[in-house]
Amino acid sequence: MKLTAKGTKEAVEAGRVLNEAGFIFDLAYTSVLTRAIKTLWLVLEEMDLMWIPVVRDWRLNERHYGALQGLNKAETAERHGMDQVRIWRRSYDIQPPALTQDDPRFPGNDPRYRDLTTDELPLTECLKDTVARFLPYWIDTIAPSVQSGKRVIIAAHGNSLRALVKYLDNISDDAIVGLNIPTGIPLVYELNENLTPIRNYYLGDPETVRQATQAVADQLKKPT
Amino acid sequence: MKLTAKGTKEAVEAGRVLNEAGFIFDLAYTSVLTRAIKTLWLVLEEMDLMWIPVVRDWRLNERHYGALQGLNKAETAERHGMDQVRIWRRSYDIQPPALTQDDPRFPGNDPRYRDLTTDELPLTECLKDTVARFLPYWIDTIAPSVQSGKRVIIAAHGNSLRALVKYLDNISDDAIVGLNIPTGIPLVYELNENLTPIRNYYLGDPETVRQATQAVADQLKKPT
Repeated sequence: MKLTAKGTKEAVEAGRVLNEAGFIFDLAYTSVLTRAIKTLWLVLEEMDLMWIPVVRDWRLNERHYGALQGLNKAETAERHGMDQVRIWRRSYDIQPPALTQDDPRFPGNDPRYRDLTTDELPLTECLKDTVARFLPYWIDTIAPSVQSGKRVIIAAHGNSLRALVKYLDNISDDAIVGLNIPTGIPLVYELNENLTPIRNYYLGDPETVRQATQAVADQLKKPT
Repeated sequence: MKLTAKGTKEAVEAGRVLNEAGFIFDLAYTSVLTRAIKTLWLVLEEMDLMWIPVVRDWRLNERHYGALQGLNKAETAERHGMDQVRIWRRSYDIQPPALTQDDPRFPGNDPRYRDLTTDELPLTECLKDTVARFLPYWIDTIAPSVQSGKRVIIAAHGNSLRALVKYLDNISDDAIVGLNIPTGIPLVYELNENLTPIRNYYLGDPETVRQATQAVADQLKKPT
């Protein structure tokens, strides 16, 4: 899925406010999904940091919605009913129906996942599953780079970032489902030497930040 | 230096013809210079390959022109005389004057070179020097990835690519100085298991390829 025109504008603005606030990064991580990579590219271009190393990993990907993947809200509601859709969206540990291997959307057909084991290849995920595959990457790869002194930028997605925020801020399973991370607004975490957050904040005009947070919350409240 | 509008157009077209010809890459290498990275990004975006790993290394950079770096032709000729400039441009092993460490253009001031040793940091280069710092990277890093079966795309520059072509095609010191690699046209090398070229060719409309080659040649012939 390509980055939308709105996403493009948000990414350029995110790069601008990061640059204006004096941020510099040494290393970037992104999912292997086009919209995250493009967002990162636009930010790095705006910050004149195109030369920093960029590490791509599927573990930063958006939650895999299984058989709901690629369906819009109307289609999903029509097939499964609105009540069921709400359960999937609002629960921490209930998976949507899994993709089957003969489905054209089966990620095993996509060359970007060709090095994954059968166990790793997601066929459907509840948020708990997203957390379970994201966290090892944070702990084994990203966190050590932060601890080595590198200033790190991560381009990811609503649910993979929820996984990170849940872990860093020690948020409960119930509460994380209600926490909405707006798109396109830099979310800054300052960590101490043990990687415990000292403070975190969204970067940008406060009204823009408020509106973006609200927009994500409203999306989830709408009948789907 | 940013990629020009012409360079942007060429890069998108390069991605288009690579895609049309059925090329797929598993791995990309680029210099740490913005214009090469942007060219690569445009190609990968056009080919829907934004997700492949991209490795940046300064050893793929354009030749460092020392104290001539950043000067246009008129300025260079005014300072050093046209005869001298021709000698620098056309010789394999004569360096332009070196940059000094107090020069604002000194690469040691640029964070992208902060991990380089003093010996590595180029202050001026003849083409021989560019070959000498490019080749170890080919031999130690890129060539092994090709031998492991990866299909590799390299985004680099006129002189770093001359270094590669000189090595692969075993071109003499004298002859390589006269060999002009056009910008924005994919140059394809098919290699056997010993990385000896089976064949090489520019990809694209033959007339475009001819014109681009000629344009680079003409630039070098012009009084500078």
